Amino acid sequence: MQDEISETLLKKEGFKLERIVSAGQATPEGEWYDQDTEEWVILLSGSAGLLFEDKEEVLIMNAGDYVQIEPHQRHRVEWTDPEQKTVWLALYFK
Amino acid sequence: MQDEISETLLKKEGFKLERIVSAGQATPEGEWYDQDTEEWVILLSGSAGLLFEDKEEVLIMNAGDYVQIEPHQRHRVEWTDPEQKTVWLALYFK
Repeated sequence: MQDEISETLLKKEGFKLERIVSAGQATPEGEWYDQDTEEWVILLSGSAGLLFEDKEEVLIMNAGDYVQIEPHQRHRVEWTDPEQKTVWLALYFK
Repeated sequence: MQDEISETLLKKEGFKLERIVSAGQATPEGEWYDQDTEEWVILLSGSAGLLFEDKEEVLIMNAGDYVQIEPHQRHRVEWTDPEQKTVWLALYFK
């Protein structure tokens, strides 16, 4: 499987904008993302399942769907599309 | 023709994030956008032709394409897709 590719598009005082390309990756078993910053993320193509520790159901995301993630709201990517690349655009800010 | 719809998704100290849905609109004849802020804009769906006053050729944008526009870099939307909605995500910042 090709590695996940992450590219910083903009980095400014108050925010950072990243483009991430997943090729079927998921967050490793038992691991969570736990960030100091707020995150707003939109799916540009592909599809993914996002799990929040404080929610029961996996959020299924398709192209054009977006979600805002609070600082320290623990979350993980359960799956990304195995058939095509999944492209994320993530805005991190304080 | 349906009006263009603009929605502010995030507004923070250092930036503003907007989602704009065009239904075939173009910038009126002879008019230019001339902004105080920097703009980073990506096309989420549809297609558009962007003209910059300081460039000769129209930049054709399709889903996933993005461009950064400097403050006071005069530009206009020559056309958006007449067949489907064109959705923009625009990040304005200083």
